[in-house]
Amino acid sequence: VATTPLIISVSRLEALCTEAFRRAGLSDVNAASAADVLVTTDSWGVFTHGTKALRGYVRRLLAGGLRPDGRPSVIQEGPAWALVDGDSSLGLVTSVFAMHKAIEKARASGTAYVGVRNSSHFGAAGYYSSLAAEAGLIGMAMANDIPSVAAPGSAGAITGSNPFSFAVPAARHRPLFLDMSVATVAGGKVYAARERGESIPSGWLIDAAGKPTTDANAYPEYATLTPAAGHKGYGLALLVETLSGCLTGAQTTWGIRSWLAGDLGVPTMHGAAFLVIEPAAMASDLPQRVSELIDEIHGAERADGVERIFVPGEMEWERRERALREGIALPSDVVASLRDLQGLVGLDLADYADSGDPEDSADDADSTRSPAQRDVR
Amino acid sequence: VATTPLIISVSRLEALCTEAFRRAGLSDVNAASAADVLVTTDSWGVFTHGTKALRGYVRRLLAGGLRPDGRPSVIQEGPAWALVDGDSSLGLVTSVFAMHKAIEKARASGTAYVGVRNSSHFGAAGYYSSLAAEAGLIGMAMANDIPSVAAPGSAGAITGSNPFSFAVPAARHRPLFLDMSVATVAGGKVYAARERGESIPSGWLIDAAGKPTTDANAYPEYATLTPAAGHKGYGLALLVETLSGCLTGAQTTWGIRSWLAGDLGVPTMHGAAFLVIEPAAMASDLPQRVSELIDEIHGAERADGVERIFVPGEMEWERRERALREGIALPSDVVASLRDLQGLVGLDLADYADSGDPEDSADDADSTRSPAQRDVR
Repeated sequence: VATTPLIISVSRLEALCTEAFRRAGLSDVNAASAADVLVTTDSWGVFTHGTKALRGYVRRLLAGGLRPDGRPSVIQEGPAWALVDGDSSLGLVTSVFAMHKAIEKARASGTAYVGVRNSSHFGAAGYYSSLAAEAGLIGMAMANDIPSVAAPGSAGAITGSNPFSFAVPAARHRPLFLDMSVATVAGGKVYAARERGESIPSGWLIDAAGKPTTDANAYPEYATLTPAAGHKGYGLALLVETLSGCLTGAQTTWGIRSWLAGDLGVPTMHGAAFLVIEPAAMASDLPQRVSELIDEIHGAERADGVERIFVPGEMEWERRERALREGIALPSDVVASLRDLQGLVGLDLADYADSGDPEDSADDADSTRSPAQRDVR
Repeated sequence: VATTPLIISVSRLEALCTEAFRRAGLSDVNAASAADVLVTTDSWGVFTHGTKALRGYVRRLLAGGLRPDGRPSVIQEGPAWALVDGDSSLGLVTSVFAMHKAIEKARASGTAYVGVRNSSHFGAAGYYSSLAAEAGLIGMAMANDIPSVAAPGSAGAITGSNPFSFAVPAARHRPLFLDMSVATVAGGKVYAARERGESIPSGWLIDAAGKPTTDANAYPEYATLTPAAGHKGYGLALLVETLSGCLTGAQTTWGIRSWLAGDLGVPTMHGAAFLVIEPAAMASDLPQRVSELIDEIHGAERADGVERIFVPGEMEWERRERALREGIALPSDVVASLRDLQGLVGLDLADYADSGDPEDSADDADSTRSPAQRDVR
């Protein structure tokens, strides 16, 4: 089936995701919260980690490997830390719970670590960091995953792509905001490029003998992602593995199960970690100083031919503002993925792509500009 | 003056450094502590950040830009954090103080952040992380510095090379241990390569127009280091800048002064940050799990032609063990730097290179094997 891109409003995409999660058994509150994670991620333009993952989460919720009625809880805690058991809930639900706990602890003690066990794939790490920054705190979020990234000298995968993110509040700007994989590129980008028929640059993958390859189709069975900046990405991967896995009681490396493939009826046992620092008591001028730093960078001399120097997260926040105004242009691979919700939970994407809901009148006005949207109906 | 390499025992190099710091006005305790930072760094084979820096520190101590009798102190604190004012002391002294404070706070609260203002260049970030790991805790250390690293799209420097390090205790192995610059390579490596007449690989530097250059001599006046893995290294640089600078009351970017050049009589106003997590209460099996992870990596399939897969820090610990047995082979640029102590504080390197001290008899036995050492006398 040929699939075209689709422009859809943020509110309608949220409604679609919320209803899909609800039909998969999540409570209203958790369904809406998880939908916000995925749609916010799409609105940043990070389509590899947004609603494209909804299909996989729903499948696992229906099969029982994720517990729709799971309840993440604190199983151990101290003044500036907590360990959370996710109870095999959706990783997004557990991670929102854990980050809120970290924010609460940091407000009391100045800083906090919250480790998570018995979780699953948590989507975009940056969503959780940005929760802290929106509340005025410095947030970091990270998670482990099944091995997909090589170490210097290895022939195969040693660590997961182990995302790491941070967000820092700024007075007159959107937060500084980074969400990175420890791989040269995230595996999702290899999948997405393959699905879109795009080629893979050299340096992203090594083959089974540990030599560079450009064959995207070999991934992940016969090829492995390279670590970003070699030993630096490899080292950061092991820091994330330590804080998300070894310290939390979660599984690590080959002990974790794929959230997408294999037996959908068993827990994946991912770990995650959240670090928060409350600047208010230490340096009440932090947001101001960060804004000054951003201004300084914006005013710096540019390389020949460059129009702007961006600070981390700036592109994502601008994409989000545009998405809130004009809707999100979902790539065709995401659209194809969302169409599968029909077979899974009986949801028709077309019902959401152009709703008659009067609350969406502003969206309707926008969406009439979109030929792509009409195509999909 | 032609200078050859020199093999010197760890204890004699420590004695030399301690005496140099003492003559520059440091207390006996601080002199010995700072000497341990530098000599440990050399013993790891990280010669860009070890005793090579002693000359510069001594010059600044003598000129007053570093206060020999400065006393770092906690100026603000909470259950899981503290801010330290370095009082323009040697950065090594202030950083040891701050990391010990972070360890103390983390033992009480589970995690701690200690930020430092009014510090200076602190040598190798990894030394402070390893202090935590040796005490059984997870340590992170970082600092800002004068701008030397570009951002994607900039023509010049935007951030310092902003070192970041971590160390994690392991039950049956030396700690996992990473010490990285956010640049593709640290500036010290460009200086060292230039001094040794070695060439600079492409990708390390951009020129004044923002284009790649291989001219090491242009650095730092007309060339800028590139960020490691592009936007990832740039983003991490700003996290380090936030935690070390914006959050501590230290200077940031162009507000910091060079610790090596310029007016040696004024403070440099560097910042630093230390994060510690105490695993004991959370997961008493952390060191065991980290050891299992290390075993797993050691046993992983290797790329064609590779003999071992190292975990982060393993090379450094093995170099240190060898250095403790056989002495440290100081490169010629370090030797030349140490010889300048003669003119600064009246210390003759040759007096330490082969001492008649009976406590050093084991070292003497080793040193008779070294033609390089005899050359320097």
